Amino acid sequence: MHLSYQQLHEQFYKVLLAHHFTPEKASICAGIFAGNSRDGVHSHGLNRFPVFIKYVKEGLIDINAEPECIGNNGIIENWDAYLAPGMYAATKAMQRAIELSKENGIGIVTLKNTNHWMRGGTYGWQAADAGCIGICTTNTIAVMPAWGGSQPTLGNNPIVIAVPRAAGNVVLDMAISQFSFGKLQEYELAGKQLPFAGGYNQAGELTTDPATIKKLKSPLPIGYWKGSGLSLMIDLLVTGLTGGRSVADITASENEYGVTQLFIAINAPYLSDHMVENILQFTKGGASNGTIKYPGENVLAARKKSSTEGIAVNESIWQKVLSL
Amino acid sequence: MHLSYQQLHEQFYKVLLAHHFTPEKASICAGIFAGNSRDGVHSHGLNRFPVFIKYVKEGLIDINAEPECIGNNGIIENWDAYLAPGMYAATKAMQRAIELSKENGIGIVTLKNTNHWMRGGTYGWQAADAGCIGICTTNTIAVMPAWGGSQPTLGNNPIVIAVPRAAGNVVLDMAISQFSFGKLQEYELAGKQLPFAGGYNQAGELTTDPATIKKLKSPLPIGYWKGSGLSLMIDLLVTGLTGGRSVADITASENEYGVTQLFIAINAPYLSDHMVENILQFTKGGASNGTIKYPGENVLAARKKSSTEGIAVNESIWQKVLSL
Repeated sequence: MHLSYQQLHEQFYKVLLAHHFTPEKASICAGIFAGNSRDGVHSHGLNRFPVFIKYVKEGLIDINAEPECIGNNGIIENWDAYLAPGMYAATKAMQRAIELSKENGIGIVTLKNTNHWMRGGTYGWQAADAGCIGICTTNTIAVMPAWGGSQPTLGNNPIVIAVPRAAGNVVLDMAISQFSFGKLQEYELAGKQLPFAGGYNQAGELTTDPATIKKLKSPLPIGYWKGSGLSLMIDLLVTGLTGGRSVADITASENEYGVTQLFIAINAPYLSDHMVENILQFTKGGASNGTIKYPGENVLAARKKSSTEGIAVNESIWQKVLSL
Repeated sequence: MHLSYQQLHEQFYKVLLAHHFTPEKASICAGIFAGNSRDGVHSHGLNRFPVFIKYVKEGLIDINAEPECIGNNGIIENWDAYLAPGMYAATKAMQRAIELSKENGIGIVTLKNTNHWMRGGTYGWQAADAGCIGICTTNTIAVMPAWGGSQPTLGNNPIVIAVPRAAGNVVLDMAISQFSFGKLQEYELAGKQLPFAGGYNQAGELTTDPATIKKLKSPLPIGYWKGSGLSLMIDLLVTGLTGGRSVADITASENEYGVTQLFIAINAPYLSDHMVENILQFTKGGASNGTIKYPGENVLAARKKSSTEGIAVNESIWQKVLSL
């Protein structure tokens, strides 16, 4: 079935108010869940909403908490989210980074004790929509073996880099695993194997079977040893800048909450649409048939499709959300 | 044959002075070439030195140029290298970023019109040795097809992230291709195939043959579409921050010179050896047999080996350098 962005937003907002969210928090969170579904990222839109409400009920998310600046390191502001809803805290943090970038060229907000931000790309789009280059990252619970290992000891710490552009922002939103858990789930539900090895089987061999990889928490990092190293460095970086919980700390608590994040907005005086177009056109020129896409191009296409055809949703999950 | 760091340094220094480098520039550049060989990165140490001298003779590198700050964007300093030797300009830029981080928590120096910095890791080590988190990147001439394409339209724009640690810094120095050109050359010289697909053959199929990949300039980005997007974003980032030349611009000039770089040093008040050790130990705990390495661990091992056994060098290249 298909729904409009407004229908999703209204229902999410209603449920969140019923769970005692303030109108501002409910509106920001509802907008992010609805926006993720609109952009085709169902795993962090409607499909995730019931899990979010479950976390709220279990008290892993403190809906009354208000993130605040607790100190600074030069121009870097250090914030504590006190376990506030992750999308709300992340939105506030990027908003502050954007403000700081107007004063300092760059704005940096570190955020500890926060919760899952759903789709990281959301905050990249937020910065780019404000005319800034946006960069953000988060750590997670351990879900991925390090290169050379078999037990999950790395977070799937994603990288988001966003560049503003009048015809549609260029936004990379990249999990460090070759396939995100959302993608693994999509392939599994469709009964398909992955197009490339995406993790390990019980014998420690590379496999294309999404169910096996999900079950064993054995996804493969991008670039084998390279993504493994990159994930580790992101954890060192966010933990070292915030004093927040590391992947090891989060994993020890068994539930993924109280994670650590970093938000950067940069004023880029030399950046122009002309420059961005030149770079995109040169890159796309490496194929004659338009098969090269820039990061964010598929999101823009999904957004356009949603606005004309409505947002395709899973009906049973929608029914579940109607009953929350 | 084996040589000491001092022997390499002295010979490089002598050749550079003979090519009219100032003593300061000659000393910095000789130290970086010798250090790269000592750390096992021969492709950007001794083995590269004759190519560097060729570029100097051809005038692609201006040995008389002095990088300088030409403006600022808030706390971000914008520098122009005026085509100075890349290692010299990069060292000066990271040195300035380190100074700025003491005032602002973070120091950022953008650098345009510079030259190949040899091993990016050098400047990560420089920041970490000064007690800072170091991050740097550069763009390059196009050497890699974007995902979905066959012609090289992406730079192999590397990422360096360095974290200080008393027992040895943790330093990721990562080309975006699955195998760097240096690694492809190593496998080719050893007559070996790559352990994983590293690029495309003439038919556009994935291949493990290093010679084919080098010849066609067809290396595979890490994580297929993910590394492809990451490389593009790095070019947008460095170009947008500096107004310097993009991968497209560099490629149009056919020789790789006048590249664009970014240097970041961060003061990290929460970072402690205790914290870093905890994270490394947790990560390494994913394998029982010590097979998980942290980024930089192999460099530290190579450095130790070089200091006890001497630096293994290619004798014919050494003879060539003696005659320069």
